[in-house]
Amino acid sequence: MACCGMCVCCHCCCRDGETRTPEELAILGEIHDEDDEILPRKDYESLDYDRCINEPYVEVLEGTDNKKAKKYEAVRWIMVFAIGVTVGLVGLFVDFFVRLFSKIKFSVVGDSVEECAEKGCLPLSLLELLAFNMFFVFIASVLVLIEPVAAGSGIPEIKSYLNGVKIPGIVRLRTFLCKATGVLFTVAGGMFVGKEGPMIHSGAIVGAGLPQFQSISFKKIKFDFPHFRSDRDKRDFVSAGAAAGVAAAFGAPIGGTLFSLEEGSSFWNQGLTWKVLFCSMSATFTLNFFRSGIMFNMWGSFQQPGLLNFGEFKCPDGDKKCHLWTAVDLGFFVLMGVVGGLLGALFNCLNKCLAKYRIRHIHPKAKFIRVLESLLVIMVTTVVIFAASMLLGECRDLAFPTPHNTTSGGEDINSTIRQFFCKNNTYNDMATLFFNPQEVAIRQLLHQDGTFSPATLSIFFLLYFLLACWTYGVSVPSGLFVPALLCGAAFGRLVANLLNVNLGMDIYSGTYALIGAAAFLGGVVRMTISLTVILIESTNEITYGLPIMITLMVAKWTGDFFNKGIYDIHIELRGVPLLEWETEVEMDKLTASDIMEPNLTYVYPHTRVQSLVSILRTTVYHAFPVVTENRQNERDFMKGNILVSNNIRFKKSSVMSRAGEQRRRCQSMKSYPSSELRNVCDEQNAVVAPAEEGEDLLQQMLERRHAPYPNLYPDQSPSEEWTMEERFRPLTFHGLILRSQLVNLLISGVCYAESQSSATQPRLSYAEMTEDYPRYPDIHDVDLTLLNPHMIVDVTPYMNPSPYIVSPNTRVSQVFNLFRTMGLRHLPVVNAVGEIVGIITRHNLTHEFLEAKLRQHNITF
Amino acid sequence: MACCGMCVCCHCCCRDGETRTPEELAILGEIHDEDDEILPRKDYESLDYDRCINEPYVEVLEGTDNKKAKKYEAVRWIMVFAIGVTVGLVGLFVDFFVRLFSKIKFSVVGDSVEECAEKGCLPLSLLELLAFNMFFVFIASVLVLIEPVAAGSGIPEIKSYLNGVKIPGIVRLRTFLCKATGVLFTVAGGMFVGKEGPMIHSGAIVGAGLPQFQSISFKKIKFDFPHFRSDRDKRDFVSAGAAAGVAAAFGAPIGGTLFSLEEGSSFWNQGLTWKVLFCSMSATFTLNFFRSGIMFNMWGSFQQPGLLNFGEFKCPDGDKKCHLWTAVDLGFFVLMGVVGGLLGALFNCLNKCLAKYRIRHIHPKAKFIRVLESLLVIMVTTVVIFAASMLLGECRDLAFPTPHNTTSGGEDINSTIRQFFCKNNTYNDMATLFFNPQEVAIRQLLHQDGTFSPATLSIFFLLYFLLACWTYGVSVPSGLFVPALLCGAAFGRLVANLLNVNLGMDIYSGTYALIGAAAFLGGVVRMTISLTVILIESTNEITYGLPIMITLMVAKWTGDFFNKGIYDIHIELRGVPLLEWETEVEMDKLTASDIMEPNLTYVYPHTRVQSLVSILRTTVYHAFPVVTENRQNERDFMKGNILVSNNIRFKKSSVMSRAGEQRRRCQSMKSYPSSELRNVCDEQNAVVAPAEEGEDLLQQMLERRHAPYPNLYPDQSPSEEWTMEERFRPLTFHGLILRSQLVNLLISGVCYAESQSSATQPRLSYAEMTEDYPRYPDIHDVDLTLLNPHMIVDVTPYMNPSPYIVSPNTRVSQVFNLFRTMGLRHLPVVNAVGEIVGIITRHNLTHEFLEAKLRQHNITF
Repeated sequence: MACCGMCVCCHCCCRDGETRTPEELAILGEIHDEDDEILPRKDYESLDYDRCINEPYVEVLEGTDNKKAKKYEAVRWIMVFAIGVTVGLVGLFVDFFVRLFSKIKFSVVGDSVEECAEKGCLPLSLLELLAFNMFFVFIASVLVLIEPVAAGSGIPEIKSYLNGVKIPGIVRLRTFLCKATGVLFTVAGGMFVGKEGPMIHSGAIVGAGLPQFQSISFKKIKFDFPHFRSDRDKRDFVSAGAAAGVAAAFGAPIGGTLFSLEEGSSFWNQGLTWKVLFCSMSATFTLNFFRSGIMFNMWGSFQQPGLLNFGEFKCPDGDKKCHLWTAVDLGFFVLMGVVGGLLGALFNCLNKCLAKYRIRHIHPKAKFIRVLESLLVIMVTTVVIFAASMLLGECRDLAFPTPHNTTSGGEDINSTIRQFFCKNNTYNDMATLFFNPQEVAIRQLLHQDGTFSPATLSIFFLLYFLLACWTYGVSVPSGLFVPALLCGAAFGRLVANLLNVNLGMDIYSGTYALIGAAAFLGGVVRMTISLTVILIESTNEITYGLPIMITLMVAKWTGDFFNKGIYDIHIELRGVPLLEWETEVEMDKLTASDIMEPNLTYVYPHTRVQSLVSILRTTVYHAFPVVTENRQNERDFMKGNILVSNNIRFKKSSVMSRAGEQRRRCQSMKSYPSSELRNVCDEQNAVVAPAEEGEDLLQQMLERRHAPYPNLYPDQSPSEEWTMEERFRPLTFHGLILRSQLVNLLISGVCYAESQSSATQPRLSYAEMTEDYPRYPDIHDVDLTLLNPHMIVDVTPYMNPSPYIVSPNTRVSQVFNLFRTMGLRHLPVVNAVGEIVGIITRHNLTHEFLEAKLRQHNITF
Repeated sequence: MACCGMCVCCHCCCRDGETRTPEELAILGEIHDEDDEILPRKDYESLDYDRCINEPYVEVLEGTDNKKAKKYEAVRWIMVFAIGVTVGLVGLFVDFFVRLFSKIKFSVVGDSVEECAEKGCLPLSLLELLAFNMFFVFIASVLVLIEPVAAGSGIPEIKSYLNGVKIPGIVRLRTFLCKATGVLFTVAGGMFVGKEGPMIHSGAIVGAGLPQFQSISFKKIKFDFPHFRSDRDKRDFVSAGAAAGVAAAFGAPIGGTLFSLEEGSSFWNQGLTWKVLFCSMSATFTLNFFRSGIMFNMWGSFQQPGLLNFGEFKCPDGDKKCHLWTAVDLGFFVLMGVVGGLLGALFNCLNKCLAKYRIRHIHPKAKFIRVLESLLVIMVTTVVIFAASMLLGECRDLAFPTPHNTTSGGEDINSTIRQFFCKNNTYNDMATLFFNPQEVAIRQLLHQDGTFSPATLSIFFLLYFLLACWTYGVSVPSGLFVPALLCGAAFGRLVANLLNVNLGMDIYSGTYALIGAAAFLGGVVRMTISLTVILIESTNEITYGLPIMITLMVAKWTGDFFNKGIYDIHIELRGVPLLEWETEVEMDKLTASDIMEPNLTYVYPHTRVQSLVSILRTTVYHAFPVVTENRQNERDFMKGNILVSNNIRFKKSSVMSRAGEQRRRCQSMKSYPSSELRNVCDEQNAVVAPAEEGEDLLQQMLERRHAPYPNLYPDQSPSEEWTMEERFRPLTFHGLILRSQLVNLLISGVCYAESQSSATQPRLSYAEMTEDYPRYPDIHDVDLTLLNPHMIVDVTPYMNPSPYIVSPNTRVSQVFNLFRTMGLRHLPVVNAVGEIVGIITRHNLTHEFLEAKLRQHNITF
């Protein structure tokens, strides 16, 4: 059914061209691609990663000394530790119940099968298995109905969040509960999904939520702990939490840290990275500690490997000729990387079609349809598993248990084989793979010395590939790592069998299975650095570094030739404006002025309440530049109108000229190294000593502007007379203020009457400004009758007075670097004379938008 | 002798206050600390990491499409691979000869000792050892005489370079040859030094040099490969090379990558990090490949661990009660971390005093004095080694070889014990530690089941501590990692012995030795993330992650309480303006205007040659802002003087107003989503359609400036009449031009005569601009008679037209982040009306400078 849809649209979704949003297509005047138009899209906003240092913040700052800062830092470390421990416990919880449920299920059904094989009541066993699986999956999909964001692996969401995109509901407590519990039932229910992705998502939520000490889902949870209430802190903690999730899931603390760097980091933040690593370590070892205690009753020991562990790769002790891998193998690994990349691309392509199909035909319908889909998937899966194990398995000879057959956990690899219908010392290879938890099946492929038949491996790979592809995207919490690894391991083991048996090469099959797993996983997810490290850590064998890295590299390059990674595909389908790592070289043909948004709505430093309300109600912008305008006769205006004169006064006071700067410096500096300069300063001090207030002082400074500098260009002597008016230009840019801040000011009644001075305006503290974080009230929730429309609001203490800015002729790569690295939300474009000409946001820097602009540029020139 | 000096000044060098440079003290008007004043200081410059996208570069860019960019990218990958392989081979070379020489030395001397023990001719053996050692060290110090930069570990230099400081001679081929050969002889000569630091330095030089295909030391090496000739590319390759050096030295590719991130990275650059990891992997596995082949004749295998490997930590197979570490041990590890931090701080303190002593009393003298010092050090070391082994060693029982006694290389740990004077089945523990290469001694401490006596361990630790401290800083290539590890391992083993024997605890001594090593090394070097990962990788045991991390953390915190890490101390002594990771919270009380350099020398867009020459000859600035001035009656001026009118014309053309921007956009855009805006555009197009040249067009645009925007503030209607003059202000900032670029323009004769148009000026291509990289000619080398002083230079095509800028009221943390993250060299401070008020360079952002400014700020307020 779905396969049909797959094939039909498959030819289209492997192309790259159709990634433009309708808006860009509109800009380009191209005809809409009917396919894409019907996909719903949301307008996502950026997080505020950049610090806004305005007056309330400075007040907090002034009270801060290094001692207080150190205390604050210590709290962060404690938080990070708490996050790590919590994530470890979550991992333990999920793992424990998955194991418990799986064990019950497989032992009941396994016994039934063994029994029925004689009695001939196999359909009964199938029914038992079906009942188990469908019950578990039903619970999982009902949980997802409660919180739809909990569906899927969560990695696309976390990736978007760490990239700086605000996605509603993604880090809420309710999502966490549904996700963590849901994934447990999905995995126990025998779906072809992993628990790794959801664990990473859960970790991220723990990171976001724990330091807040409050919850939106559950209003009762609200402690008085008003710290870390900013996007910046939250995103940092989410990095730590996500890393801890990886660390717990794979037992890979370093890989986890690199994961959160790779997905999220803006600049390399040494302190943060160190905390993230600590958080990951805490998670890993909390998990190890409790697993050692609970499972092996070795409390106090930490020797248990991570949840996903590949066992120990080791040549038999006596065998000097055995190598895990050699230079010759490397060549095969490269080929396997290519094949893995191709398979991954195919997987992504099929899954993309399915996802589109779901968005169009399933999501708009009633919600219980999704539950039915989940149940259909698990039903088919269960029947396939059962039928394949019963009908297609072969009986293979069992290798005698040798010391290296035991995994480091002390578990004998042969204890998990399935003998269904097979005589002593042989085992049913298909059933061994299908009638075991996926992690066990992976270890079987990596370490079982007894062979798997090529036919079994091929069939297993094919079935698994198709079912896993169908499963990913169903409305249940579902990861992708373990299915991809298992699928790839089967492929690798198949290659090993062919080389070993057919070509008679002396190879270590476990390595090939591992490389196959890496190749396929790499082809699907296209992660690089972090995946390399995660796999190295999971094998606990540093010598696999080179082959794993080369395989992943080749798989990524091959796959990128056809389409994007699976996570990026799902991010794209959701219309999230993700920023890539860097722009393409070609994009540097564009400048900031080519890509900026030139239509802005401005706010004046002093504005009437009625103007603010009308601006907020009639626009959707999230930030407004604060500007001042020029006027011909400012002196006249100043007398007439308090609003205008306040604005003019602000403008004058905010422009710090070189002369004024020099003077201030002279006053505050007792001694200065250069004697020549000291003289200049002294002289100035003597003349201007009785500093008068306001514009007279400024005027004096302006008149003396050139004095301290030797005139280097005698043929270009500057004119000596500047009037006040000449110094200022229209629409001078002074700062940025956010919509949420403006609404907050209105609600809090921060304003002054025309007859009063602006100093009478009430002041908001930093805590009051951030009280409502993360949900600020909307302008439409404000009761307008409570506002006096003629009052004036002075926004200057609350705006961001010094955002990073770029000039209009800055090249796109520089703009992009600044924006992405600093985690900005709005980047004003300001020309050489201080006039704001546009604003750049995340949407102006997405790959699609830039490509559209470049095409337009190429057409024009 | 030196100890005496140590004690005297030790009380002072543990304080933190005396880290100000004479300049800052002058600013503060404080009395000079006599101690510091006599230390020579250099003015170091920043690297140009930020791309300068000027016209020649844009020309290159316009010819670039994605295909060409991909080719370029492929060349980078090949380069990175080549660097990795080369660094691996360098490591192999060093390791091979160190092993060879050490083996010869120890076998000759060892045989002589065994023989002389009976004959009583021990002094003869001592002489033999002395002859070997002094000969080797003599060669090493002569090599350092040839290239003084080759002294020391090189890590401070590389750290500074990666931080963005240009240090002359640091990445030259001659330095490489002296360093790589020198360290070989120092280590073989039995000095208490490691080869790791110099290998990292060598790797960095390979990274810097290889992609240049030319050498300054050896003029004959010059291929025609004009790529990667910029500071940016060079620094990226140096990152890769340094990482490869770490990877080769420790067999830690991930640790190496993190090392170069930790020390060098500006922003997290995904592509670069991936290349760096690949480079590290190449180096590690090149080394492994050849070592497997040469040492074990297993060509094609890669199983050899890295050069520094700690062997395999493993409990005896049968022993279920044995744990490598438990929760209880963690408590002891924390205590050991504290002690390690204290010991490290003491080490650094002593070494700092010594280094100061050397700078004052040894460096100013004739160069051969340094050779004599090296010889003195090795003489004392040799005598101490010999005497201690002969007189202080105890005979201890040897454990029987068990399977786990073999290190993974297949080497039996018992094959390297020394039996000097001891009977069968006992061994001389002191001699075993002293009469072996340091790596072997470390493995003995980690894995030898036979005990070492507490007295031996204490004496060994003490002697080693003092001698290693004295040695570091002597004029030979010398690393610090291995001595610190060995010293720390002895301390750890001592603790283990005490716990084991005296308290009867059941612990695994190897783990304690390892943790001791980590604690002391961490206390000395204070590295965090990368060191953790390096040690985990060296042990090849992921379960050591937590204890190693906690120990390093505690050691660092303890040590930081007293002084800085050893590398930072040496960087500080050299006066390198290193930028820390971030500023302290308190520093945010300062703004950009508080810390900037306000005294600038300007250049006009069009300037006479004579002015340029005089500016270049009378100032030492490395960059000049390009500015235009305002004049009262520009129209009159423009008629009189081509120079002035060109400047005015440039100014007019360079200011892109919002109106002009909007108009340009309308013209180039065929269709626009908003119909309202389209109407506006159409109307504008209709009116302005016959675009006239120059100021008329601009004037028209200005007049219509407010048209496209709805007037939101009816009470503030803007005045309608702007004159040309009002639009521009004095000293508008247009761009930055570097000293080297100006000199290059003068030499190349880029100028035009007054009577001609500026378009007649010859054009330099990008390749011509960067031809002389990295040594640009000095202005004093320019033959003035060849220049016509009255010609005019148009610098606008060659300046950086869009450097990142900050406003004067930007807080220091934001300035710092921008500067450090983007790897800037000059950061102009521009006020709200586009006037440049100052420039911030690296020197304005060092911790010392900021502290001085903060004190000044606190005094003023």
